[in-house]
Amino acid sequence: MQEGILSDTYFMKEAMKEAQKAFEKDEVPIGAVIVCNDVIIARAHNLVEALQDVTAHAEILAYTAAAEYLGNKLLPQCTMYVTLEPCPMCAGALSAARIGRLVFGAHDEKRGYSIFNNKLLHASTKLSTGFLKDESINILQKFFNSKRE
Amino acid sequence: MQEGILSDTYFMKEAMKEAQKAFEKDEVPIGAVIVCNDVIIARAHNLVEALQDVTAHAEILAYTAAAEYLGNKLLPQCTMYVTLEPCPMCAGALSAARIGRLVFGAHDEKRGYSIFNNKLLHASTKLSTGFLKDESINILQKFFNSKRE
Repeated sequence: MQEGILSDTYFMKEAMKEAQKAFEKDEVPIGAVIVCNDVIIARAHNLVEALQDVTAHAEILAYTAAAEYLGNKLLPQCTMYVTLEPCPMCAGALSAARIGRLVFGAHDEKRGYSIFNNKLLHASTKLSTGFLKDESINILQKFFNSKRE
Repeated sequence: MQEGILSDTYFMKEAMKEAQKAFEKDEVPIGAVIVCNDVIIARAHNLVEALQDVTAHAEILAYTAAAEYLGNKLLPQCTMYVTLEPCPMCAGALSAARIGRLVFGAHDEKRGYSIFNNKLLHASTKLSTGFLKDESINILQKFFNSKRE
């Protein structure tokens, strides 16, 4: 798999597929994948309503699956791709996990971690934003518009 | 059960029992209980090393157990007692869960949520601090001193 912008777009498309699964389950459509050595080792989507658990965000579910797969709570060699900017809870988890790199689509102007404090993410985590931003926003708007009908 | 400082001390002692269980498992000794209508509906202690999962903080484990018990992701009628100030991840989870009240022992001067942003906790959550503060610090110091030997 090629390094760089092409593979980032490829993996973010996989995260978008997870967001679409959440949408089809009537969950807020956010998806995530975790990549290690160019292989997806975990994929998850938001399941807060199905599980009645506010911690069941895509990022937390993907992290827990990845840590279990690797048998290690720390993921410095991994990249998380998530369709929306993580909330403070998820940023805190990714910080504790020392995730190597975080790639997200759209900023979350209401609940994004960066509104609270940029240092919620670990200083060693590389950050890239804006991948498939429009698709990320579109599916969220489609979801919230359907709730207003 | 009497309302007020006596019952708060009682429940914080129960949280300290959980911290002691963590200590005996060689985990960072932090414990939590969740109380609803003067009944403990969930109790948990830190299991990060045993589970190799950075999200396995006492607060998250107690929250998940309480939400499952109640069949509801929101806990506005509940109080969490935890021996140490929650980190941003846990404060974010408690905020999303709209926990009614948070009681903690000692402030965490390195990783406490209030260092990052007091608004990580929900505006509707009542806050009380300092219960069994010395016991909370003592067991943590005993743990970290044992690691330095």
